[in-house]
Order: sequence, then structure tokens, then C-alpha cells
Amino acid sequence: MNKIILLIHCPDQQGIIAKVTNLIAESKGNTVYLEQHVDTDEGAFFMRLECEFLPESKVLELFKKRFSEEIAIPNKMEWQMFDPSVTPKMAIFVSKYSHCLYDILGRHAAGELDVDIPIIISNHKDMAEVAANFQIPYAYIPVNKSNKIEAEAKQIELLKKKKVDFIVLARYMQILSGDFVNHYTNKVINIHHSFLPAFPGAKPYHSAHNRGVKIIGATSHYVTSDLDEGPIIEQEVVKVTHTHSVNDFIAKGRDVEKIVLSRGIKHHIKRKVLVYNNKTVVFD
Amino acid sequence: MNKIILLIHCPDQQGIIAKVTNLIAESKGNTVYLEQHVDTDEGAFFMRLECEFLPESKVLELFKKRFSEEIAIPNKMEWQMFDPSVTPKMAIFVSKYSHCLYDILGRHAAGELDVDIPIIISNHKDMAEVAANFQIPYAYIPVNKSNKIEAEAKQIELLKKKKVDFIVLARYMQILSGDFVNHYTNKVINIHHSFLPAFPGAKPYHSAHNRGVKIIGATSHYVTSDLDEGPIIEQEVVKVTHTHSVNDFIAKGRDVEKIVLSRGIKHHIKRKVLVYNNKTVVFD
Amino acid sequence: MNKIILLIHCPDQQGIIAKVTNLIAESKGNTVYLEQHVDTDEGAFFMRLECEFLPESKVLELFKKRFSEEIAIPNKMEWQMFDPSVTPKMAIFVSKYSHCLYDILGRHAAGELDVDIPIIISNHKDMAEVAANFQIPYAYIPVNKSNKIEAEAKQIELLKKKKVDFIVLARYMQILSGDFVNHYTNKVINIHHSFLPAFPGAKPYHSAHNRGVKIIGATSHYVTSDLDEGPIIEQEVVKVTHTHSVNDFIAKGRDVEKIVLSRGIKHHIKRKVLVYNNKTVVFD
Amino acid sequence: MNKIILLIHCPDQQGIIAKVTNLIAESKGNTVYLEQHVDTDEGAFFMRLECEFLPESKVLELFKKRFSEEIAIPNKMEWQMFDPSVTPKMAIFVSKYSHCLYDILGRHAAGELDVDIPIIISNHKDMAEVAANFQIPYAYIPVNKSNKIEAEAKQIELLKKKKVDFIVLARYMQILSGDFVNHYTNKVINIHHSFLPAFPGAKPYHSAHNRGVKIIGATSHYVTSDLDEGPIIEQEVVKVTHTHSVNDFIAKGRDVEKIVLSRGIKHHIKRKVLVYNNKTVVFD
Repeated sequence: MNKIILLIHCPDQQGIIAKVTNLIAESKGNTVYLEQHVDTDEGAFFMRLECEFLPESKVLELFKKRFSEEIAIPNKMEWQMFDPSVTPKMAIFVSKYSHCLYDILGRHAAGELDVDIPIIISNHKDMAEVAANFQIPYAYIPVNKSNKIEAEAKQIELLKKKKVDFIVLARYMQILSGDFVNHYTNKVINIHHSFLPAFPGAKPYHSAHNRGVKIIGATSHYVTSDLDEGPIIEQEVVKVTHTHSVNDFIAKGRDVEKIVLSRGIKHHIKRKVLVYNNKTVVFD
Repeated sequence: MNKIILLIHCPDQQGIIAKVTNLIAESKGNTVYLEQHVDTDEGAFFMRLECEFLPESKVLELFKKRFSEEIAIPNKMEWQMFDPSVTPKMAIFVSKYSHCLYDILGRHAAGELDVDIPIIISNHKDMAEVAANFQIPYAYIPVNKSNKIEAEAKQIELLKKKKVDFIVLARYMQILSGDFVNHYTNKVINIHHSFLPAFPGAKPYHSAHNRGVKIIGATSHYVTSDLDEGPIIEQEVVKVTHTHSVNDFIAKGRDVEKIVLSRGIKHHIKRKVLVYNNKTVVFD
Repeated sequence: MNKIILLIHCPDQQGIIAKVTNLIAESKGNTVYLEQHVDTDEGAFFMRLECEFLPESKVLELFKKRFSEEIAIPNKMEWQMFDPSVTPKMAIFVSKYSHCLYDILGRHAAGELDVDIPIIISNHKDMAEVAANFQIPYAYIPVNKSNKIEAEAKQIELLKKKKVDFIVLARYMQILSGDFVNHYTNKVINIHHSFLPAFPGAKPYHSAHNRGVKIIGATSHYVTSDLDEGPIIEQEVVKVTHTHSVNDFIAKGRDVEKIVLSRGIKHHIKRKVLVYNNKTVVFD
Repeated sequence: MNKIILLIHCPDQQGIIAKVTNLIAESKGNTVYLEQHVDTDEGAFFMRLECEFLPESKVLELFKKRFSEEIAIPNKMEWQMFDPSVTPKMAIFVSKYSHCLYDILGRHAAGELDVDIPIIISNHKDMAEVAANFQIPYAYIPVNKSNKIEAEAKQIELLKKKKVDFIVLARYMQILSGDFVNHYTNKVINIHHSFLPAFPGAKPYHSAHNRGVKIIGATSHYVTSDLDEGPIIEQEVVKVTHTHSVNDFIAKGRDVEKIVLSRGIKHHIKRKVLVYNNKTVVFD
């Protein structure tokens, strides 16, 4: 059978579930899984379907055509269709901190992440050996104030050459330009080491310690041109007490960062995430 | 509009979502919310729908007839239909511990639980004053080894008289007979003060302390004739350390019990729970 | 035996534990429990001791004198001594939301909070009946822009008359003046319905929903003249998803508020909290 | 300064804190950190101290002698003294699952675990490459029913040769004999993939799924001759729902296993753990 994943977003309206599932049935397809959400405040409708179609020639092609013409266009629908048998290509950006990189590469090696990793890009040389140990190409592209535009051009050229589908910033300490981000809308996943919107910007663990909070956390989110303001995919926290120093916050926070980032990556890979109004619908 | 909640459980099969949503659309109804689950191991399909129908006479009646004949019977479906405008009637059974009782009555008074509470039944007189403060009738029905059958007969008579839909055991320290439970299948919610299946039976906090665990918890579940073996609705835990005595376990555990029990009650009231194979599907 | 709780805060220095425990031993006392913390960044030392002394006349008096002269003064120590057999008096301030009030009163009635509650003060009449059900005096003191000074004067007069030791703001919707707060430094416990410093001020659940966070929380803290900026005692969170409306956030948040507030109260009652640098040391 | 960590366990008695801290002060030492616990049910006293002594010859030696003669022996004390400047040597036992191994080696490489890892021992060849990537010696020692005694003899010989202080079973799928365990009492840390005592033995995720629990977890514990019955060091859980398959349980559980195991290792390395009555005191 040919499988597809269908993500739908449109103004809420009567009978939309019936229309879609009916067309699938008429097209000799089967709706294996359906998840749906209505944001009643916004009048917005969201749906994620996993479907199977007969592997006959043109069955799927015909469905796409009819879906577009008979459902998507008249209902002002934004939609995406994915073939789950195609493995997405993920680039990792990293600077000097190794814990998120080790975590992602360890999960990948253990078979937990269904992606290809054609390239690791860094503004430092420090992680080259880690990449080598995991047999992954490593590109050292230094970035500073004067060469940022050229550096990003190099990065994008490399990403295109490697046919990268999405990017993970594994504690990459550079801010991407709006131009760069526009090339990869909702395709750059960052890990921020606080539970946003608390403690945006630099040194959140220090700020948290200074404020005397009893909980610290991490946030994975899609990168937008507003720093630390993009749509949140996942958040997790861990308790702290007065006995913990800033270094303890950092050490405890690492575990949360790793988990939150890897969950964000998994949701993205499985096509579970829809973005609207700078928020996410995560069908988990 | 006439609203209904529809709970469906049947063998998994192709096109079932389309069939149901289609009939709703044909019946001039609208599927407002649809949640679905497939247990692929068991080949079982589950669905919960919230629908609206035109408030014309016979529209809903006709839908029910067609649903039963055209969909439910041919697809070997078990199904339940609820009118969400009808407030369910909940009885509370309690013994001497007051914390769960206070919590439920406080939530009810604060408008958090959309139920009527026509009766509190107890094998002790201790909680009569609490019931009185919340203006709820209280029935003292003593239970001992020799009068258990008669006591349960009295309880059931009272429950029927009060038209009770479901029962909450708010730390009720008596074991209900299989006969009693059969009168209220999947309609008696118990709170057990451990994360089952660890520490079933009496004094779980003492057993947990003795074992030196670092986490304690609570479980709300439907009561079956096997003690502490019924389908689990909700579980929650809290961390403990070596510094906590058995009494600290009990005090910390109370908060978990209250939350887990109230969540179980809410899920049940909102018709979110389906039971099969001694497990629950909770559409949350 | 005469029990005392001793809270100590001083510049960190060599031998301080030995000095204190030694004097206790010399005074025929026994150190039953000792908890200690060093903030190495600040060079600050904190200690909490539970001690027993022989119930002979003057034993404790002599210890206090020697402790003050031989240890506290030479070591620039701030210290507090409490008699745990004296039950503290707690006032509750409330407005229109009942859930925290019900929770505190329910816990108190169930024997969980070792305090007296001589008065509930409110700027509305709504909660008078709840107070009456729990047999607690209720004072209705309306507050508006023009009468704030007079209203606070009435409140303070009543608190003094009732010999109140500390105050709990159980979702009290008025901001206390700096003057009021100065009367009760580190003795007014507030519950804020977000995990501070995220979402200070009004309507945090709405802000959280708007931002699309995946976690919401609550914070209990001592009230200072800076709104929502006081020393944090306890924080807790709960997960949310895109399926939850603002009202769901509010309902889920209530459970967190109740737990976080009651934990803050318990820590305060048990003399577990030391405040310094706008942060807390909570010996738990 | 010469630092030491002192772990003490004795029958509870008056003045013990003063005696110990006093001797330290008399020996020109400083008590930097003191944590203490009294199990009032058992009448047992526990203490962990971090102390500094002048780096003069014999200062520490003299303290040890006086501590042993004047305090430990008369007070029937069990005690251990550690030099925190000595890095402990940790062996890892592994079978075919790689996630815990990757996690430990990644943490070690990132500087998070202050241990040497002189050897990885496995009953399979699968993880040899992972070990090689992290430049750690790997010993393949096959184990089966007929050669178990010889295999354990080889393991112990290797552990002694490498001067191993403690052993981590990173999902090692063989049961160690009582003989082996007796060589390393409270020095073998295992990760069990359930929150014990629920689901001991093989395939806990399958059992958990079958029971329909809403929470799964993991437990790190010292290995004793009773399988899965040893003193618990750390436990953590994660929520699951009806939507999760057994494989989802396994994937979610892995993250918990990694965290719980690494926390157990860290507590052990920092000499934070005391064992008594098959329970742990973890000074965290």
C-alpha cells in the first residue's frame, strides 16, 4: 500500500471531516489514523491523517488532484502531503557545547531517530572529532561580525547541496539572520535553555539562579526572526533548590535540554506539528 | 442545536471514520470534535464524537435509527450515546478519611464538577457534619462481616431511589461485593493510594516506606470484582526521599490522591473514557 | 523536654557548626536535627536546628543568653528562635475565587495544617458563607481606589487584635501597599498563577495561552513592595497542549495553585524558610 | 587544604553532631558541609560531612586515629572516609542495547561524570565499535549457562587488574551470581526499566502495557543477590496514554532509564549514598 500523511489547516466549517474521509474512501484509500483540533477562539480547523492507498498507478495522483480541486481550494485550506517512506535529511548546527550533539548522535546511532544526517555545521572546530567518531561530515564555517552574510551564504549553499530538509540548532551560539530563517520557515528547530518566555536571551541559568526560582527548564521551538519568540514545540522542567549552584542548574538543565530537543525533532520528523499564529498544534 | 456525545468501539476495519461522519453529515448534523484510536495489536477501533444536530423533531431520532441499523449492527459495534445537557448524578462513599471528600465537595462548590451529588453514603458517622456544611444528604449505613449483604442491599436501594448514575469511593474502606459491582459496571470509581500495580491492598504507604522507594503515587480506577485490579483511569506520582517518614508519605500522598481522583471523575463526567480488555482509552 | 527551632544566617566562617552544636551540648541540650547550607558565591552560611533542652528552669534562658553573647554577636549572625509547641495564627485574605480558600480550609479541617485561623478578610461578601461553614470569623472590608489607606488601616487593626502571625493571600485580587507589607516582612504569602518570572501581573493564563506554552504553573512567594517580585518559596507546573483552551488552563492551573500555596504555608509554619537576597533557603 | 568526605552511620544518640564537629575543629579542620538524617523508627543516625584539614603532615592521620578511637568505636559507628581528589574507576557492563552506554559515554566525554572508565565488559561483540569510538578498552566475555562461573571469574580478574571501584550495569542482560555480588557489595549499580516494585523481572514494558498503566518508569539500585530487590537509589517516571504502543513505552522509557542511571552514578561518585536495611539515604 502507498502511505501518506496529510496535514490540513483551514477555517472551521461544517462537515469538513466527512468531506475529507469520504474522498479518501471514494479513492479506494483507508484512513488509518485521524487527529483533529478546532481552535474555537480563532475559528480554525486542524487535521492530521495517515492514509493508505492501493499501489496502483495513478490512484494517489488522482486523489491529490481531486483533493486539491474539490476540497482544498473551495475550503481555503492550507495543506501538506508527506510520503512517510522518504527519510528526511537533518543538518545539525553546533558550537562548543557537546551534550546535545552527543545526545542526538547517540539516539541516531541507536536507531531512535528516523533521519539522515548528511552534515554537521559549526563555527568552531571543537566538535569535529565527535562528528568523525559517528562518521558524519563536518563543516567548519567560522562566523564573526564582519563575515556573517558570507558565512550564512556558505551554510545555505552547503545545506542545498546536501538536500537538507530541516536544521537542528544543538546549542548553536550564533543568531541566524532573518534572511537565513526565511529560507527555512518552520524548519529550524532551536533548543533554548529556559522555559520560555522566562529568561530569554543569554545566560538563562544565571538569571534563574539569581531570581531564586525553584524550577528550571528548556524549550524547543521553531526559529523565527524574533529571538526566542518562535512557536514552542516542547517544554520540560526540573526542580531545583537553594542547594544548587549555577553549575548545578547547568548540569541539571542539560538533561532537560537533551530530552526537549529530541522530542521536538521526533515530532517534526513524524510530521506531527502544525504552526499557526506563532503557536504549534502537536498531534502526539 | 441538539448536541450528542457518541462513544464507539468495534473491530478495526476500513472506512469506518468515513461511514460515521458521512451519516452525520447526511443527517444534517455536524461533527464538532472527533477523537479516534486504533489498537493495532488487538485490531480494535475506538472513536469519540461530539456532534450537533438541527433541533427539528425526529432529526436525532432518525439518526439514531439509521446509525444502529446501517453502521452499528453490520460493523459489530458497541456504542453509547449521551446527551451532554443532562447532568449526571454522582454518589460519594466515604469512611473516616476526610481529605478526598473535602476536595470533591470543594471542587463541586467552586463549580468545577458538572454533577449533582444527591447522596453521601458512609459506614461511619464521622463525615455527617462535613456533608451538612455542604448541604448534601448523608446516609449512615454501618457495615460489618455479618450484615454486608443487607448493608449493600440498602445502599443499592438508596442509589436507585436517588437515580445515581455513578459512584465515587472517596477512600471508602470497605470492599464491595462482586454482586454490587455488577450493578455498576465501569460506574464505580475508586482511588487507590499507590501507583498500581505496586503496593495493592492495605497500607501501601507503609509498604512503600519499607521498600525504600523514591516515588509514591495514586491510581484512580474502575472497580471490578478483583480488588485493585480494575481498569486504570489516571495515575500520578510525587517524589519522596529518605527524609520522609511514613506520615510524610501519607501527607504527600493525599495531594496526589485528590488530584488523581478528581481527574478520574472529570474524565468520567465528560464521557471521555472507554473500557476494554480491563484497560481504558481516555480521550483527553 | 523543651523543644526549640533555631534559624541562623551569618557570613560563612570556619567552625561555626561546631561552635553552635557544642554550646547546645554544653547547655545539656540535644541537637535532634540539623540542616545547613553554604552559599559559596555569597559567602553566606545558613543553618536550621531542632533541639531539645531539659525542662529545668532557666536552662533554655541561659542557653539563649550565651548563644546571643558568645556566638550570635561575635559572628554577626541573624537568628530566630521558635517554640514549636506554640501554634501560629494565620489570616486568610480572599476575594471572589473560592478554590484556594476551600483547599486551605479543607486541609485545616482534615488536620493537615498546624495553625489557628482567627480571621478571613475579604474585599467582597461572596466567601462569607464558606467561612461560616467552616466556623471561621469573616471580615468584609471593601477596598477601592479612594479608601485604600483606610481599608488597610482597618485590616491591620483587625490583624493585631487577632494576634495574627502571618497572612495568606488566597487569590486576593488587591495589591497591598508598601506600608502594609512593611508591617509583615516575609510574613505575607501570595500565590501567583504562573511560574514566575514568566507572566507576572494580571491574566497570566491568558498570556500563557496566547504565547502557546506547553507548561503552565504557579508560584508561592513572600510579598514585597515589588509586585510578583518577592522571594519564591515554591513552584510547580503542569503540562498543557494545543487542545486546552484558556478555561482549561485556568482549571488545570487551579490544582497547581492549591498545592503550591499549601506547600508554601506548610514550609512557613514549620519554620523551614530563610530569606536573603530576595531568595529563599527552604530546608525541606 | 586536604579535603575528606566522611560518611557515618550509628545508633541515634545525644550529642553526636557536636562530638564529631568538635573533634574536627580541635584537629584544625573545618566542616564545610554537613548533612544529617535521623530515622526515628529505626533509631538510626546518618551523617555526611565534607571537611578541610591543614595540609600539614600527620594532621589528617591524627584526626583519623582520634576519630576511630574516641568517636567511632565508643559509639558503635560504621564509617567511611573518602579523598575526593581521587577519581574513582568505573566499569560498564553492557549487552546489546546501546542507549544507556551511549548516554554514559557521552556524559563522560562532555565532562559530566568525574570517573575513569578503564573497561567495558560485554557478553556480546555488538558494542565494541561504540567503545572504540570513545577510546575505551572493551572485553568480550561470552556468558552462557554452562560457563557462567568461569565467565564471572574472568570478569572479576579483569576488574581487579583494572582496579575497578564500582560497576554499572548499563542494561546488562545477565544475572550476576551471589558470589559475584558479594565481591562488590553496594558497588554494582543496575538500571531496571520499571518503577520497582512494580514489574520486576523480564519485559516490564510489555507487562506495563498489558496492565494499562498511565505511568511508566525506571529504577537505579544497588544489586543484591535478590533480583530487582536491592536498595533503590533513584526513580523517575514518565506519563503514557492509551495511544502508546509497547514500542512507544520502550522509546519513552529509554529517556527515563538514561537519566535515572546517570543520577545513580553521580550520587555514587560523589559519595552521597549510605545503605542500610536495604534502603538508601541519598544526601542530595
